[in-house]
Amino acid sequence: MAAIELHYWPTIQGRGEFVRLLLEEAGAEYVDVARRKGGIGAMMRFLDGEQPGALPFAAPFVKVDGAVVSQTANILAFLAPRFGLVPDDEALRAEASQIQLTIADFVAEAHDTHHPIAGSLYYEDQKKEAKRRAQIFVKERMPRYLGWLEDVLARNRESEGRWLVGRDLTYADLSAFQVVEGLRYAFPNAMVRLERKLPRLVALRDRVAARPRIAAYLASPRRLPFNQDGIFRRYPELDLRAPRRTSRRRKAKR
Amino acid sequence: MAAIELHYWPTIQGRGEFVRLLLEEAGAEYVDVARRKGGIGAMMRFLDGEQPGALPFAAPFVKVDGAVVSQTANILAFLAPRFGLVPDDEALRAEASQIQLTIADFVAEAHDTHHPIAGSLYYEDQKKEAKRRAQIFVKERMPRYLGWLEDVLARNRESEGRWLVGRDLTYADLSAFQVVEGLRYAFPNAMVRLERKLPRLVALRDRVAARPRIAAYLASPRRLPFNQDGIFRRYPELDLRAPRRTSRRRKAKR
Repeated sequence: MAAIELHYWPTIQGRGEFVRLLLEEAGAEYVDVARRKGGIGAMMRFLDGEQPGALPFAAPFVKVDGAVVSQTANILAFLAPRFGLVPDDEALRAEASQIQLTIADFVAEAHDTHHPIAGSLYYEDQKKEAKRRAQIFVKERMPRYLGWLEDVLARNRESEGRWLVGRDLTYADLSAFQVVEGLRYAFPNAMVRLERKLPRLVALRDRVAARPRIAAYLASPRRLPFNQDGIFRRYPELDLRAPRRTSRRRKAKR
Repeated sequence: MAAIELHYWPTIQGRGEFVRLLLEEAGAEYVDVARRKGGIGAMMRFLDGEQPGALPFAAPFVKVDGAVVSQTANILAFLAPRFGLVPDDEALRAEASQIQLTIADFVAEAHDTHHPIAGSLYYEDQKKEAKRRAQIFVKERMPRYLGWLEDVLARNRESEGRWLVGRDLTYADLSAFQVVEGLRYAFPNAMVRLERKLPRLVALRDRVAARPRIAAYLASPRRLPFNQDGIFRRYPELDLRAPRRTSRRRKAKR
């Protein structure tokens, strides 16, 4: 197998990070094309339809053995069997895929907290709407999605609640790790409260972070830091208030 | 194979309709469970985790040969090979999946035009934000997604632009049909203008509508009508203005 080409925006984790995590855990030979000189141009030629193969609607996409494969969940489902990161069983593969797709929905909603009107407008031009949307995201959607992941872990007797699907680690676990990391960055106060009720998911996050290849990746310059251009952004006005600071303020007022 | 169970909300087309179209074109033996007496309760037992198998985050989901499979695109990818509605080739399967997932993103954005803040709030409580979001959806996102589908058709030499993937009809074509139908219902004025530049996609829509099993389905009571509870809703204030009416008004003003 020739080196896998990953095409994604070079300055953010974004949706590409789910693919990077799979490639890193797999120890795969890959090139993060757009992070090389001239790489953005190479990526754009695919998006502009100047390359043969399936036409991606957007990045990320990968080129593997001549095939161009796009849409994050589809990329992961395509690559995972090559590296033993999903079971052979058809029903378990479908379960990994449904978890990944639910995580994708969750990630899209997380993105829309800061861009509820349009991705093409600045945050500042939709800040009022962002506050409204984020409030409901934090209070209703985060507990619902995260609680569902916790339930999926609790139900998986095959791994005694250690992994989401089957007996061993799959790409869905890597993605769950990334979601927890992203939410900790974007909504630290909300996460502190929610994590108390998510012991299995937090343990899963730690288990993934401790995998030798993942740990090496996270410590390397290949792992981009979270920033204010990605999907997960830290706008304190969209998060819950910090519980401690609030009580200190209350004291001061008295 | 025992009859396939489809579980979805019984009064709307919604995301379940993509699965219904596949089952109908396949001539599959299936039960639309929640449309039977007591069927919503049966569906809820899966969503509440009271049934074995993978835990669906939301409907639609199907039960097939003992497996519970959720997330629309995943359901379609799981069922299609059983009925010859996707090629055997791995790269072409991945292409069908990426088209379906892009359609899923498009559908989610169409939904959010009337619910930009939260699905749990009434339209009336987010009407102002809906107008802002819909304006950009109609002007930027609809042309972009629909133009991409048109491009995918144009690039597919294997079918001479008749189908999206490979030589024959796949489930992605059924889904493209459904998107055109939904947008015609929700945004009739915008679609009249856009369709002029989408000859291949409109021809694909007609080709799908003319398939004997699809035609029979659309004429049957099994096909629910579009309505104001589904994903695609007709709020004239979110659509473009009708070009004719506008010009008449202009005349009257003179």
